[in-house]
Amino acid sequence: MKDFHFELLARDGQARTGIIHTPRGDIRTPAFMPVGTAATVKAMLPQSVRETGADILLGNTYHLMLRPGAERIARLGGLHKFMDWQRPILTDSGGFQVMSLSALRKISEEGVKFQSHIDGHEEFLSPERAMAIQRLLGSDIQMVFDECPALPATHGAIEKSMALSMRWAKRSKDAFGEQSEEERRGRACFGIVQGGTFTDLRVRSAQALKEIGFDGYAVGGLAVGEPQSAMFETLEATVPHLPHLRPRYLMGVGKPSDIVGAVLRGIDMFDCVLPTRSGRNGQAFTSQGALNLKNARFSEDPAPLEAGCDCPACRQFSRAYLHHVVKSGEIIAAMLLTWHNLAHYQRLMGELRLAISQSRLAEWAQNYSATTQPADAI
Amino acid sequence: MKDFHFELLARDGQARTGIIHTPRGDIRTPAFMPVGTAATVKAMLPQSVRETGADILLGNTYHLMLRPGAERIARLGGLHKFMDWQRPILTDSGGFQVMSLSALRKISEEGVKFQSHIDGHEEFLSPERAMAIQRLLGSDIQMVFDECPALPATHGAIEKSMALSMRWAKRSKDAFGEQSEEERRGRACFGIVQGGTFTDLRVRSAQALKEIGFDGYAVGGLAVGEPQSAMFETLEATVPHLPHLRPRYLMGVGKPSDIVGAVLRGIDMFDCVLPTRSGRNGQAFTSQGALNLKNARFSEDPAPLEAGCDCPACRQFSRAYLHHVVKSGEIIAAMLLTWHNLAHYQRLMGELRLAISQSRLAEWAQNYSATTQPADAI
Repeated sequence: MKDFHFELLARDGQARTGIIHTPRGDIRTPAFMPVGTAATVKAMLPQSVRETGADILLGNTYHLMLRPGAERIARLGGLHKFMDWQRPILTDSGGFQVMSLSALRKISEEGVKFQSHIDGHEEFLSPERAMAIQRLLGSDIQMVFDECPALPATHGAIEKSMALSMRWAKRSKDAFGEQSEEERRGRACFGIVQGGTFTDLRVRSAQALKEIGFDGYAVGGLAVGEPQSAMFETLEATVPHLPHLRPRYLMGVGKPSDIVGAVLRGIDMFDCVLPTRSGRNGQAFTSQGALNLKNARFSEDPAPLEAGCDCPACRQFSRAYLHHVVKSGEIIAAMLLTWHNLAHYQRLMGELRLAISQSRLAEWAQNYSATTQPADAI
Repeated sequence: MKDFHFELLARDGQARTGIIHTPRGDIRTPAFMPVGTAATVKAMLPQSVRETGADILLGNTYHLMLRPGAERIARLGGLHKFMDWQRPILTDSGGFQVMSLSALRKISEEGVKFQSHIDGHEEFLSPERAMAIQRLLGSDIQMVFDECPALPATHGAIEKSMALSMRWAKRSKDAFGEQSEEERRGRACFGIVQGGTFTDLRVRSAQALKEIGFDGYAVGGLAVGEPQSAMFETLEATVPHLPHLRPRYLMGVGKPSDIVGAVLRGIDMFDCVLPTRSGRNGQAFTSQGALNLKNARFSEDPAPLEAGCDCPACRQFSRAYLHHVVKSGEIIAAMLLTWHNLAHYQRLMGELRLAISQSRLAEWAQNYSATTQPADAI
């Protein structure tokens, strides 16, 4: 079986393009991973997700552990088989959702005790349990369990949280290493840099993770409400401290302009619910900016949603039709706009990869901001 | 352009199989028409509806006149283009929905004044307006405007209502005939037999319609709460009074066993929201009976929903997965179960057509009732 490894193909400034090789298939970077929270990318069949150009999906440990349960998915043959997605899957560790969704959290050195947001039953997540769940799911890229503090917070609070996350990162890596060789083969474990928007803490976090040693390095705890400029500054301070020959993943990001800015600053991988969630809310990303299909100005617009897009929404229907089904609350509205938004995001990633490989990313990005405003003003 | 005509291929007892030829394509009978209420078969892309084997869709005059409006659809190129379905479309006349959905109805000889169930604005439907709307939509098979009284009702009340519907049928046919030859070419106008479960009224209604002369004959006002046996008795009394060489359409029916029984009694066409609505409610039709996927007994069932079915739900997923996405309220549950139910219905129609063409329908139907109970006990 082919091992997990990252092949760097070209660099352009801080930006890079490459291929993450995995036994389940290649991942072209910069890569956008659609979010398949509950073993489904909402409103999409898996073959349609692949048609948009996605090489890899993200699955959520928190959601899947609560329903249908990691042990159940394992008994049914693993997450890939369960949701009929045979290409790579990255799973988060549940750390973020424990903070944002669950009730009555109690954090200790050992882990987090919390109540399910579905039925209130008590659950426990620790580095060891989070890695065990990801192993049961059969995840190709497993993330360490971390604490995600809410921003803004004091330097002292973030420092304390980051230090805990680093101790948990070590325990996560140890738990990953304790899998049988068979189970671990071809699979990767990524560390997560924390530290809020404090440069010194980010640098210390990156160094702590490098000492442990990971197959890839994520930047967590950003895009939680801070301005885009603060996110970019944090990336500029953090990325140079990450190993060049490992993939870099900015978690939970973002709007198209966030992605462009982060790629310019050396990020290789992204995930975000924005294209799927926006699609369910009647919003579409286009090269001319974001459109709200609820708007009455589309009610008799015979034009396709985005010229040149070959997704079913654009190929088969008018903006007038999309307006109608959005206004009528029809399921096909969510299906078509989700498909379009994922296709738009993958097209953006393809353009970024091409521009980097041709050493013209700066020019491309300048042209992009000039023509696509307000691309993400949803 | 090829004209609308019905080709009878074979008869087996009262049952028949044939082809309705239309300029937009052939309709194999007995035919099941998925319901595309608001210019979408809910939770399905049009190409997926076609993949299930549907030759024709039903569109709803009432819903489309209220939103987005018939004139608007006409300006956008007609309903086929609007919803990207290039095969035949049959439209009802709005009579049934005016009774079941709208508020503050006022019926006169002229027509029905009512308030929209969406925003309460006042609307008016008459035979002339209903036919004008269907023409604006570009419907291939246009239904006369009728009154649909609630059952049970007295003989006197049903007689009065039926007589009004027959006067409206004449006005509908006249309005259809007043279209330009260009518009009318290849399009059909169907009459609707009324009369509740009173045999004498059904016979008089059928005769009144034959005197007017239609391209096809529907049986309306059934499956509104009466027992299946009453529906079958009414069909037995009505169908012999309809012309042999015209298609016969049982409106709004029904469960699989309703369809089998009605085909045995000489019906050629059906429409019903049951497969689509059930799909959105987690219910699936299978050859072993109806299944409620919410049921916990499916939570670890690795089997496909229905053995031998080649729809995506059965080909790609387990019952355990379907249970999970139904319980989680995921859109993919509605997408997969709707697809499956429509595929199941079309497979049923194909089996009926084959059995009739091989003169073994009685035997087939006996075997069907023996093995498929409770096929429709949802």
